[in-house]
Amino acid sequence: MLIEVPDSHPRAQSLRIREKLIDGFDKGLVAKAGLIAHGRGECFDYLIGEKTQIFAENATETACVMLLLAQHPVLSLNGNVASLCPDEIIELGKVAEAPLEINLFYRTKEREDALLKHMQEHGAQKVLGLGNDETVQIEELQSKRRIVSKRGIFIADVVFVPLEDGDRTEALVASGKKVITVDLNPLSRTAQKAQITIVDNIVRTVPLMTQMIKEMKNYPQKKLREILTNFDNKKNLQAALHFILQRLKELS
Amino acid sequence: MLIEVPDSHPRAQSLRIREKLIDGFDKGLVAKAGLIAHGRGECFDYLIGEKTQIFAENATETACVMLLLAQHPVLSLNGNVASLCPDEIIELGKVAEAPLEINLFYRTKEREDALLKHMQEHGAQKVLGLGNDETVQIEELQSKRRIVSKRGIFIADVVFVPLEDGDRTEALVASGKKVITVDLNPLSRTAQKAQITIVDNIVRTVPLMTQMIKEMKNYPQKKLREILTNFDNKKNLQAALHFILQRLKELS
Repeated sequence: MLIEVPDSHPRAQSLRIREKLIDGFDKGLVAKAGLIAHGRGECFDYLIGEKTQIFAENATETACVMLLLAQHPVLSLNGNVASLCPDEIIELGKVAEAPLEINLFYRTKEREDALLKHMQEHGAQKVLGLGNDETVQIEELQSKRRIVSKRGIFIADVVFVPLEDGDRTEALVASGKKVITVDLNPLSRTAQKAQITIVDNIVRTVPLMTQMIKEMKNYPQKKLREILTNFDNKKNLQAALHFILQRLKELS
Repeated sequence: MLIEVPDSHPRAQSLRIREKLIDGFDKGLVAKAGLIAHGRGECFDYLIGEKTQIFAENATETACVMLLLAQHPVLSLNGNVASLCPDEIIELGKVAEAPLEINLFYRTKEREDALLKHMQEHGAQKVLGLGNDETVQIEELQSKRRIVSKRGIFIADVVFVPLEDGDRTEALVASGKKVITVDLNPLSRTAQKAQITIVDNIVRTVPLMTQMIKEMKNYPQKKLREILTNFDNKKNLQAALHFILQRLKELS
């Protein structure tokens, strides 16, 4: 542990989450830019009260329906996600019947290997986008980030890409995928471009998704479709911003 | 350089600042938690429009007066500050006739040595709080962070402590110092506890201070005292929050 965090510390939970990430950094899973990105997230998490608010619940519910109704859903995974909730994302993959695919902004052989090892230690059976897995390039993307698995994102109709970069989100949308993201900043390009944006902390979102999908397996198709139809991502993002504004007013 | 940042990138300047910090991290100046803290700052800098706004200008002006009128002003320096604006803080120390003192949240011999080397490479003549410099402990502070220089912060009446932790700011205030801070988050404990809070990016603040102090050397004492008297930190923080609220409304 980097520092001892007493329970009395006003930001104890936030600091504990941070330690998971620093641990991931020490294991070679997380890039330096990933640490900085986490800091930006901390700021917005603070602004939404470090709780799953109603707008996040609505987006999460809709995301679960979209995953359930998908032909080829894929859960995309980067170093930050793997550090913050490895067991939880594996569990979600199982209940959503969706493969995991590694998707690195800063792709190096070392980071790939470290991630695969980490996920296997946490019990992952299969992780796409690594090693011998056959990859192809998405035309819409520059740089190494356009590499995706032929059995994963390439054929996916719905992709869950939490904590994603704006360029990549745009490219995935442009290539015809339905994109679900988790982003604490409701103003980010990723948040604005995705079809479903969950404005929440990934450590809260992923277990909630698993729980919701389990419940939804008993829902009639009609109910599932209603949830999808009733969701408006733009309006939901407005609600998130409105919440942040209210909270800032109260804090000030 | 970690990544190439094209000028066309919507966040080019922010990314270039970030690279300075990552460079500082690679040199051993910046702690992992320092990278994360920088991310939080990026978020708030975005919210204030990545520009020195009027509330920042007012606080900066008052801070300059306070430094000019001080008996023993000290500029405190951590790894993030040293990475982001080493030349600029040395220049400020000269015009404000205030020594630099190293002040580390995560104090290790390695980081101390790296910081001293870095500051000397940038032309610093003397840096307090390091090596053979005699240190004492501030009673109000737990942990290694209570170590301060006997010739620096210990005898200082005014301390400039940018990017500071809340505990330490509180302790400095409790020990009777006048504390000037730079903090992009107007809601942080540091921002709330300091006598003067500059809500701005340190890379913009420090050069502006140097420029202002140079001009102020021609001001009559009466004018300087008026600037001090007219400043209200609580009201100024309110103005910063109000600005952020307005901007969020416009962005949404």
